[in-house]
Amino acid sequence: MSDLSDDGFLDGRLRAAQPRRGFRSGADAVMLAAACPAVAGQSVLELGCGAGVASLCLGWRVPGLHLTGLEAQADYADLARRNAAANGIAMQVLVGDVADPPVALRAQGFDHVIANPPYFLGGTPAPDDGRAIARQEDTPLAAWIDTALRRLRPRGMMTLIQKADRLDAILAALSGRAGAVAILPVAGRAGREAGRVIVQARKGGRGPLRLLAPFVMHREPAHPGDREDLTQAASAVLREGAPLTALFAKVS
Amino acid sequence: MSDLSDDGFLDGRLRAAQPRRGFRSGADAVMLAAACPAVAGQSVLELGCGAGVASLCLGWRVPGLHLTGLEAQADYADLARRNAAANGIAMQVLVGDVADPPVALRAQGFDHVIANPPYFLGGTPAPDDGRAIARQEDTPLAAWIDTALRRLRPRGMMTLIQKADRLDAILAALSGRAGAVAILPVAGRAGREAGRVIVQARKGGRGPLRLLAPFVMHREPAHPGDREDLTQAASAVLREGAPLTALFAKVS
Repeated sequence: MSDLSDDGFLDGRLRAAQPRRGFRSGADAVMLAAACPAVAGQSVLELGCGAGVASLCLGWRVPGLHLTGLEAQADYADLARRNAAANGIAMQVLVGDVADPPVALRAQGFDHVIANPPYFLGGTPAPDDGRAIARQEDTPLAAWIDTALRRLRPRGMMTLIQKADRLDAILAALSGRAGAVAILPVAGRAGREAGRVIVQARKGGRGPLRLLAPFVMHREPAHPGDREDLTQAASAVLREGAPLTALFAKVS
Repeated sequence: MSDLSDDGFLDGRLRAAQPRRGFRSGADAVMLAAACPAVAGQSVLELGCGAGVASLCLGWRVPGLHLTGLEAQADYADLARRNAAANGIAMQVLVGDVADPPVALRAQGFDHVIANPPYFLGGTPAPDDGRAIARQEDTPLAAWIDTALRRLRPRGMMTLIQKADRLDAILAALSGRAGAVAILPVAGRAGREAGRVIVQARKGGRGPLRLLAPFVMHREPAHPGDREDLTQAASAVLREGAPLTALFAKVS
């Protein structure tokens, strides 16, 4: 993994080296970090942390977290460690499979588990491409959610971001094991169907499912070429590291 | 069932007698009818048709349908027949349980099944109150969906409206048996979480799940007392009988 780019996140407040070719974190990782309601002193496990972008965005926003990442590919795990050190954020990174986590991890319980499980975007990646491993759904979504729920403390909170068309699989995997499920649809433009969902659920929770108002990324009805057209809310999250947690907070 | 009110729907274009006390159809039934993409010549079964409002709104909008209602309570079934006749809309109404439909129904396959399965709204209804039967979830939601799928022809379309917090149960019941699931969140106001969902699914379909942009009922951020404040889109559906079907149509 020699051909790296040095990418800025949160308007350059955070920098992360990532392979130029292969799995690269982007807006989804930043949105995931923004949605996690962790507070100082709490522990957070990221499943499939890649180069660490989501955990590091979260660590940048909330100092005093105990961050742990699990990553199947050793070279990505190494990148995550280097990125954490370069940003002055403490993060432990373990190498291992989400579906069969290392023993060291099985002994721990976390206040939060976050994940951006890979999904197949189409196309045929090269066999030696990190993306081939990360983007194909080798580990079923249900296994990601199973491991997340097992590693959460009672009442701990899972937050994940995923393609919206997997909402049924996500809810099926949560059924009977987590409650207070909140679904935040993420739409590219107002009035469009959701491309992503951010789903939050509390282990052992009993609250009713809530389908929140969508979060809209772009202002214009169609993409205006190269011109920046993030909504004010999306710009706050992606460029300033603002949280999305208020959207999930229960309105009485 | 002697104490009836004569209620107008679609700005009085349709009239339906309903018991003053007990289960009364309202906006949900009209929204359900608006969402069903039936076209002239097709057959439509409504499970739990009550006094027939949803089927009759649909029959008003789409002439030439073959409408059938199934209703557990004989007095509501009788009302549905009278309401159909009074509006000049042909509708067959059978008495029977959704979970154990009459033999006559089991022999038929329908192009569309629609349902507004009852849900418990809280409170303690009187024991002889029709609402006590209709609003308590005596018949599990899964049984409604099972019967709907059994009574659909291959590639037939199910459309139902339900409280948004039952989305997980709806998707679980559809799993593996229907596809091309489209979820329309219905929100009272812009930016609020959805109170209802309208879920459409094709029997034996394989298309991906879609989470649509919400349909918003009211314009104002808070309820302005008695003043009408429906959005233009909601007014078109509730007062003019406009369809919602375009929202579900796949945008390429």
